Parts: sequence; C-alpha cells; structure tokens
Amino acid sequence: MKISAIITLKKDVLDPQGKVIHQALDGMGFKNVNEVRQGKYFEIDVNEDDPKKAEDLVESMCKKLLANLVIENYKIIETQ
Amino acid sequence: MKISAIITLKKDVLDPQGKVIHQALDGMGFKNVNEVRQGKYFEIDVNEDDPKKAEDLVESMCKKLLANLVIENYKIIETQ
Repeated sequence: MKISAIITLKKDVLDPQGKVIHQALDGMGFKNVNEVRQGKYFEIDVNEDDPKKAEDLVESMCKKLLANLVIENYKIIETQ
Repeated sequence: MKISAIITLKKDVLDPQGKVIHQALDGMGFKNVNEVRQGKYFEIDVNEDDPKKAEDLVESMCKKLLANLVIENYKIIETQ
C-alpha cells in the first residue's frame, strides 16, 4: 500500500526558499499572500497490507532518513 | 487561511531522486519497499477567508509558477 509522508520545517526555522517563492508570487501579481513555506513530500509504496504496520514503517523511515528531526516535522498520510 | 499544495511528478516521468532514496532505505534494512517517489509540498497562507476562493487562488499559483504541468501534477488541500 501507498503511504505518504510530508516533511516540513519547524515553525521557528527560517525558510529562505519559501520566502523567494513568496517574492516571486508577489512579482507575478499575487498580492494577498501572507506566507509561503516549502516542504518535501514522499510517496512510499510498501509491501505491507496492514495500514497500521505500513504507517509505522514509514514513520521509522522518516525518523531514520527522511526527516531531520532537529529542524523538521513529519506527518504521515495514508494514500491508498 | 492556509492552503497546501502537493506537486508530484506524473506517473510516467522517471524520478531519479526517489530511486536514490529507495536505494538508501534498502541499504538501511528497509527491504519491503516497492517504490519511492518524491514531490514538493507548499503551505501557502493567503489573505482570503472563503475556502473556495483561497483554493482557486492557490490553484492558479500552481498553474502559473509552482508546477510544471508538462511533467507534474498538483493537488490542493485545505489545511486550516
């Protein structure tokens, strides 16, 4: 089954990439944007039919490889 | 209100970055992974209280700047 993980920077961590996107949007005429923050998205197809086990597996991948827990948060979403 | 957008590569587009992550996970002992695909995630705080209008705004940002529609798909999610 497919499990998705979203990795975002923690609230207090500066996001220069998001800031640049904000400026670009502003320059294109999108004036009513307050903030843009960018993150990463992973769609992982695991060989596991039990949703709970699949989510646990992806969570441990996030902890060990995908996310830097010092500055990032992760969120697991079941896709299918 | 905050609207999120997820940008993913289309199904038939090769994802070398996802492949490398797959190999890294494999090397770390996560053997039952079939596929990993990476995407981008944007959390956009727009100055607009109507959810429908806010989503339309973010959709037009995706079309004009955030996503390359030739090779990528986008999905809009209401966060808050």
